[in-house]
Amino acid sequence: MSRIAYVSGAYVPHRQAAVHIEDRGYQFADGVYEVIAVRGGKLLDEEPHLQRLHRSLNELRIPAPMGDAALRIVLREIVRRNNINAGIVYLQVTRGVAPRDHAFPKSAKPTLVVTSRANRRPDPRHWEGGIGVITISDIRWKRCDIKSIALVSNVLGKQQAREAGVFEAWQVDSDGRITEGTSTNAWIVTGDLTVVTRAADCAILNGVTRLAVLDIITREGYRFDERPFTVEEAKAAREAFLTSTTSDVLPVTRIDGAPVGDGNPGPLSRQLRAAYLAHAAIPT
Amino acid sequence: MSRIAYVSGAYVPHRQAAVHIEDRGYQFADGVYEVIAVRGGKLLDEEPHLQRLHRSLNELRIPAPMGDAALRIVLREIVRRNNINAGIVYLQVTRGVAPRDHAFPKSAKPTLVVTSRANRRPDPRHWEGGIGVITISDIRWKRCDIKSIALVSNVLGKQQAREAGVFEAWQVDSDGRITEGTSTNAWIVTGDLTVVTRAADCAILNGVTRLAVLDIITREGYRFDERPFTVEEAKAAREAFLTSTTSDVLPVTRIDGAPVGDGNPGPLSRQLRAAYLAHAAIPT
Repeated sequence: MSRIAYVSGAYVPHRQAAVHIEDRGYQFADGVYEVIAVRGGKLLDEEPHLQRLHRSLNELRIPAPMGDAALRIVLREIVRRNNINAGIVYLQVTRGVAPRDHAFPKSAKPTLVVTSRANRRPDPRHWEGGIGVITISDIRWKRCDIKSIALVSNVLGKQQAREAGVFEAWQVDSDGRITEGTSTNAWIVTGDLTVVTRAADCAILNGVTRLAVLDIITREGYRFDERPFTVEEAKAAREAFLTSTTSDVLPVTRIDGAPVGDGNPGPLSRQLRAAYLAHAAIPT
Repeated sequence: MSRIAYVSGAYVPHRQAAVHIEDRGYQFADGVYEVIAVRGGKLLDEEPHLQRLHRSLNELRIPAPMGDAALRIVLREIVRRNNINAGIVYLQVTRGVAPRDHAFPKSAKPTLVVTSRANRRPDPRHWEGGIGVITISDIRWKRCDIKSIALVSNVLGKQQAREAGVFEAWQVDSDGRITEGTSTNAWIVTGDLTVVTRAADCAILNGVTRLAVLDIITREGYRFDERPFTVEEAKAAREAFLTSTTSDVLPVTRIDGAPVGDGNPGPLSRQLRAAYLAHAAIPT
């Protein structure tokens, strides 16, 4: 079966799916995106993803390309046409095509692109042994709460992680505090078993998996503190983990090469992972 | 005559010029660009533009899409096919098309897009009366020395300027010092007739027009200081101006609504503008 993409009104073969060179997404990174997990052919946490999409669009003052009812149909149709059971839907909205000029065009129709693909489940070794992260300087813009496609700094950070042989890079602000990974949120568990993650300020993206884990923490009554934490605090933590749509909850067992706690996934990380997988209806 | 664009090896009608939706320029802003002025059908300051292109590509570790000799031919051919006498050439290089994944793809062929268009010369009122700027917080990433296509913050800034009824927004770093405009470099002339512009650090793009004006300043023996200056200093300056490929040298006569000096273009700004236009072989 050949892959199908949705591009501004049409379902087209993926390899032919194209946008104009003056799409403002291509020339200005003037757009936003979402990645939604598909589990058992269904969209996981569709509601918070659409809410966040609208928030990002509002912040950039890009009109919605269509109503939510129509958008939900397109998302489902792309999953169906690509026959995806476990995977992701990727959707991107840009301000549309216009002659190149920085300021907003007087009239442009937003471009909507939707694709879907099957995902490998995370490597079992990642959650059985945990993964490593490096820490790098956070060089991104000051509105990381907007899920914009201006991701070149995230690209450079992820590449640094790959070259260091680890899964992710945790970005560090000018005060020495960790903001988040290049495509994941960062968490630690302190010595007194408090789960800590940065509050959703302008320096991080408010991850949908992050929100789901916060729900679990509240429901299960774990001790919790939403605040920034430093690299030193992370290295001295009892446990660490990361969250994202494609990674679920993954224990972090090495930071800059040094073991976190005893170097094995901690019990709290394991419990939160299991609870999240139950939320996502994934067999553990 | 219909416009022609160059896209990865082919000259195509502009309205059909397209790139794949998984071009990393579209999904990650993983690319760089240049805008070169065309004057009398010739490329102005082609050499420093190509040097800067290579610098940007090197910083992002994107291979050049072709050798410089071939690139120069494409640039000329696009000017010729579009019959441009006075205007600009726009060129963009991205890391190419690959399945979406933040880190660099193992193999991807860089995408080269080149377009050209006739430009209106700047509105005569702009240089006769000077233009206004507002000052805004600089929210961009920390590598503005790379001419990347991750321009969404510049878009937002330019839009703020437009809505304030002025030509440009000067961005201000966390120390209260002006970095640059959203698509122009910022300059002032102090009370003792010293021309001041920020040194080419990571907070600004080293403009080709900026370099040409620096050459003129050196050659003509103007007093000069390459250092950051604050908003307060700019507002108290004797003169102010901005530079860019499409604006040449434009006097700035209002900052946040208040007049600079006596509110008219100053003599030094006028002299530098005239000298730059001579360099660019534009009849004043």
